[in-house]
Amino acid sequence: MDEVDAVVERVRERVLPDNEERAELQRVAAEVIDRAETAVADLPVDAEVIQVGSTARGTWVAGDRDVDVFVAFPADLDREELEEYGLDVGHAVLPGGHEEYAEHPYVKGEVEGYDVDLVPCYDLDDATDIRSAVDRTPFHTRYLEERLDDRLADEVRVCKQFLKGIGAYGSDLRTQGFSGFLTELLVLEYGGVREFLAAAADWHPPVRLDPEDHGQAAFDDPLVVIDPTDPERNVAAVLSAGRLASLQHYAREFLDDPREALFEPREPDPLDADEVRAAISDRGTTPVAVVFDAPDVVEDQLWPQLYRSLGGVTDELDRRGFDVLRAATWAHDRAVLFAELAVAERPTVERHEGPPVHVRDHAAGFYGKYADGDAYGPFVEGDRYVVEREREFAAAAEFLRSDALFDVALGAHVESALEEGYDVLVGDDVAALADEFGAEFGEYFDPRP
Amino acid sequence: MDEVDAVVERVRERVLPDNEERAELQRVAAEVIDRAETAVADLPVDAEVIQVGSTARGTWVAGDRDVDVFVAFPADLDREELEEYGLDVGHAVLPGGHEEYAEHPYVKGEVEGYDVDLVPCYDLDDATDIRSAVDRTPFHTRYLEERLDDRLADEVRVCKQFLKGIGAYGSDLRTQGFSGFLTELLVLEYGGVREFLAAAADWHPPVRLDPEDHGQAAFDDPLVVIDPTDPERNVAAVLSAGRLASLQHYAREFLDDPREALFEPREPDPLDADEVRAAISDRGTTPVAVVFDAPDVVEDQLWPQLYRSLGGVTDELDRRGFDVLRAATWAHDRAVLFAELAVAERPTVERHEGPPVHVRDHAAGFYGKYADGDAYGPFVEGDRYVVEREREFAAAAEFLRSDALFDVALGAHVESALEEGYDVLVGDDVAALADEFGAEFGEYFDPRP
Repeated sequence: MDEVDAVVERVRERVLPDNEERAELQRVAAEVIDRAETAVADLPVDAEVIQVGSTARGTWVAGDRDVDVFVAFPADLDREELEEYGLDVGHAVLPGGHEEYAEHPYVKGEVEGYDVDLVPCYDLDDATDIRSAVDRTPFHTRYLEERLDDRLADEVRVCKQFLKGIGAYGSDLRTQGFSGFLTELLVLEYGGVREFLAAAADWHPPVRLDPEDHGQAAFDDPLVVIDPTDPERNVAAVLSAGRLASLQHYAREFLDDPREALFEPREPDPLDADEVRAAISDRGTTPVAVVFDAPDVVEDQLWPQLYRSLGGVTDELDRRGFDVLRAATWAHDRAVLFAELAVAERPTVERHEGPPVHVRDHAAGFYGKYADGDAYGPFVEGDRYVVEREREFAAAAEFLRSDALFDVALGAHVESALEEGYDVLVGDDVAALADEFGAEFGEYFDPRP
Repeated sequence: MDEVDAVVERVRERVLPDNEERAELQRVAAEVIDRAETAVADLPVDAEVIQVGSTARGTWVAGDRDVDVFVAFPADLDREELEEYGLDVGHAVLPGGHEEYAEHPYVKGEVEGYDVDLVPCYDLDDATDIRSAVDRTPFHTRYLEERLDDRLADEVRVCKQFLKGIGAYGSDLRTQGFSGFLTELLVLEYGGVREFLAAAADWHPPVRLDPEDHGQAAFDDPLVVIDPTDPERNVAAVLSAGRLASLQHYAREFLDDPREALFEPREPDPLDADEVRAAISDRGTTPVAVVFDAPDVVEDQLWPQLYRSLGGVTDELDRRGFDVLRAATWAHDRAVLFAELAVAERPTVERHEGPPVHVRDHAAGFYGKYADGDAYGPFVEGDRYVVEREREFAAAAEFLRSDALFDVALGAHVESALEEGYDVLVGDDVAALADEFGAEFGEYFDPRP
């Protein structure tokens, strides 16, 4: 056994649930299923109660306390009835639960310390007939139950722990990483965690895998793993290029220098205000922050809007000559669009190139527009007219505080939140954010792959 | 007669030498030729004395006081002897004259208030056999003497005055404009100054003219006028794209709104130090100036080197993140490389993109280089490694004061001059240059086409 295998073995021992945890989980799952079947019996339609997810497939990491139970209704049931009956069952099973909304509404609650999702879906013959994403889950569970033996299930647990350690686990739209199902398919495809990491270390994206060899469609994603139950779907559609590159980096790190530390999520020390100021001073940049109340929407709505807004704002800062060195967006009670500027101020004048002088009509229009104005010029450089005209915003903060901020591509809820009011912090003043975002500053000023 | 013709007519009256001026010039030219023929008679070889240039062709502008006389030696004479005999004749004709050097040495002096050039050349049958550029001049004079009648000669005078007025007259390497010969060919080609300007207003460079329809070679210049005495030569080779664009601009101005003012060289008011400071403040830029003793070389050597050095320095400033808004170079006793910066300071750190993570060897090399250093990162953005490393120069002035200045493309004499020592002025301190370069500042801060 070499050092890679030895580390995998030690991690396996940590992530493998012990008999007590397994028995306890089984007991709770049985209880939930029993309650659900009782509730279904009271409905005017028949429905099948099935356990899904990692606890059903034996691929959960020790300590995870999630039980996912689906209620599969007949395919000919109205969607409205499905939702109504689904919520009926959910509330019956989880009396203290609350409703959440994915594509259907469903009930989330707690049973003896376990997080339980009780989700209605349709009982279909073929995954390509699905009406919403949750209908696919039972197919995934059946597909993997048939293929993951105990050894592979344990390899999946180790792999999930690795992805958690490097911050790449989760297909939520904040993380844009690897879902549990994707992890399971990859370990299955390569036959083990070590084999998967060795392959990933050498990938040249775009990479395409098709376990059932039935995919026809083309995808524009860096990793394509055709869903074995649906040839039209890429299981890795959410995975970003950055998370994939991060996986490749850490796969190599692990193979070159195997160590358990890679399996532990990094938790950089939070910075206090003084430390934030020191970091800014060391870097010599001018940070700016747009701070507002975080919109009250689910995370999978919030984060794409924050990322989009950050892209919109930083593109516009760059376009206006305020060079963005790096940027980030964070959210707790407040949300922050944070950009570290290499150039925060510009001269009063900006250079504006006109057409080549020989393009007579166009050139005459340009010359006529500026000749009698306040601009310097028009003069000639090479074959073109050039003017130096007044710049709209000479300081980045002026732009951020102006209505022009609303002309950039912002997510809809972010835009509404900004309309309610926002603060613009500049330079050392951003240190005031350390109370709420100290951990984010810690990560920002000590970036890793 | 429309307004264009009326203005041309008024200018013609100004630029046409009166009878007294003509007679006076003729008398001086005859005197010079007579002295030269006498000196030639003392030589052991025969040689022909010929008057060339605008005064020979009757295309000089009233007030010009140049007499150009060439001594054409037999084609089989050694170059050393030609130079020796040429200087002998020159000194005999111009006792107070001094030697200058183009391709051959020649003598420049004064006779009764006229500037006289006495230049030796070879007497050849065909302009394509020439050994140096001056050998071509007699061919040009003969070609034009046969074709320019009095009316066209006067049109040439008006055209020269127009080009002087817009700052585009002169084929010296500072101006990079229109030579006298080029002006004569263009007026001849189009049949008059108005016709030439009307054509130029509509040109779409590159423009190619070939009066004798004998050119074969391709040229990469914006205006190509094949020498009627030499099919391999572009008479407009020196003309820059900027001067050509300037001509097109003012040709249109003149045709749209004919006025005599266009025929008068612009002389912007020189600025004093306070006015320079006010201009800088109005623009909000950070000017920098590299100031040194002007190299003691002829203008046609000096200016290409100054332009080259300015290009080298501004390119490097841009490359290092110090955005150059506009730049200029000036020379009197001292020479100046002047650049107006939109960004004069940068943060301590600069972003440096590495290879895509999936290019394994290259990526591992990059990661290994920076992982244990002082840089922030490497981290992953998109599919690449990125680091934020220390910038070599955080201020433009630091770069200009450092040895790194000598790594840019500088002209050889400029480089030597800088090695002797130079000053770097920053911001308001450049106003100290107003004593010597007030006129240049005046033009710089009120730029025109």
